[in-house]
Amino acid sequence: MLICKVLKPLVSTNRIPGFEHKHLQVVLDGSSKKVAVDAVGCKPDDWVICVGSSAAREAAGSKSYPSDLTIVGIIDHWDPETQQQISGGAK
Amino acid sequence: MLICKVLKPLVSTNRIPGFEHKHLQVVLDGSSKKVAVDAVGCKPDDWVICVGSSAAREAAGSKSYPSDLTIVGIIDHWDPETQQQISGGAK
Amino acid sequence: MLICKVLKPLVSTNRIPGFEHKHLQVVLDGSSKKVAVDAVGCKPDDWVICVGSSAAREAAGSKSYPSDLTIVGIIDHWDPETQQQISGGAK
Amino acid sequence: MLICKVLKPLVSTNRIPGFEHKHLQVVLDGSSKKVAVDAVGCKPDDWVICVGSSAAREAAGSKSYPSDLTIVGIIDHWDPETQQQISGGAK
Amino acid sequence: MLICKVLKPLVSTNRIPGFEHKHLQVVLDGSSKKVAVDAVGCKPDDWVICVGSSAAREAAGSKSYPSDLTIVGIIDHWDPETQQQISGGAK
Repeated sequence: MLICKVLKPLVSTNRIPGFEHKHLQVVLDGSSKKVAVDAVGCKPDDWVICVGSSAAREAAGSKSYPSDLTIVGIIDHWDPETQQQISGGAK
Repeated sequence: MLICKVLKPLVSTNRIPGFEHKHLQVVLDGSSKKVAVDAVGCKPDDWVICVGSSAAREAAGSKSYPSDLTIVGIIDHWDPETQQQISGGAK
Repeated sequence: MLICKVLKPLVSTNRIPGFEHKHLQVVLDGSSKKVAVDAVGCKPDDWVICVGSSAAREAAGSKSYPSDLTIVGIIDHWDPETQQQISGGAK
Repeated sequence: MLICKVLKPLVSTNRIPGFEHKHLQVVLDGSSKKVAVDAVGCKPDDWVICVGSSAAREAAGSKSYPSDLTIVGIIDHWDPETQQQISGGAK
Repeated sequence: MLICKVLKPLVSTNRIPGFEHKHLQVVLDGSSKKVAVDAVGCKPDDWVICVGSSAAREAAGSKSYPSDLTIVGIIDHWDPETQQQISGGAK
């Protein structure tokens, strides 16, 4: 799963019916922006866990939901800087 | 899902029958070009949401449709430059 | 789907029976070489559409065919250079 | 499958019920951090094998488990530096 | 499918039962190392075809096998250098 930062909701009026009324969020994965279906109810600046691949469908509510990236959890505490140092020290 | 910009339709006369008569669009994902099945009816310069993985099949109309990238929505408003600044400021 | 250029056929005598007698082609995806199952009958220097993910299996002929990249169409006209300029001008 | 290094457990109190009580680990894949479901019981600094794609679901215990990255094995001995040299010498 | 070079077998004593007794090989995909299930019986320095995505499961022997990368064929002749020049000349 990816560790992403929530940027803001995405509005797409003209979309396929399969998306239903679920919320879409723009998330930051490293330096690239992606769109994820919100299955937990998050807000901008939250650090979240995003699941991709075919698991994103079931995570969004049903096996036929057309998602390839779904927010499945909000991380309790995440500090990208500190995390980097721990990783370097463990080598 | 990816945030892509529609470039232009793609014509491929010699293709497998499974594609039926659905339209194909060349889209720009960052700096790389890809081909997506159009499920919403978009036009060049639209910013769109593209779904990949196995969800692209169902999004294109049926579980056996041979797509790995399907345009599932047109974004109402998207400004790549402003978006970049919001992201930087939120850190 | 990816836009690839066909380089040449690939010969692999020792392979799993599941591949049957379908042709394999070495294709160029940007600057990296990949192997794709040929479902349309293409030749070197053709520009083709390649489908990946789970859709590559059905596109190769059956749901249990072990492909993750299948050539599904030959592009009628493709000029990588001109294409680049159109993209730049549209911004 | 990916060769990753385990960094530390990840706590996410607000997550979808589908994750059950399985442990999540932050792992290092090259220089990027990812989250994986732990199916073997590993600890920080272990070098592990992570399976992605749809196989990650079954590997995590059931076909409907919403994982796209699951730790499926602990590598007995792994020295990233030596490995690099063997690779260079074999060319 | 990917064109990889076999480096050496990988030993993982503590792994999930789903892997059974199949051999795992460390392979080189460009400059990054990955682990693949060996379905053909290859040896170090062989150039092989590796299939990913959901097709890797069936290629490894059964639909429920937890692989996302399976070696499905040994390439008869592969010269990465010559190949590069052919590609350049064909443009």
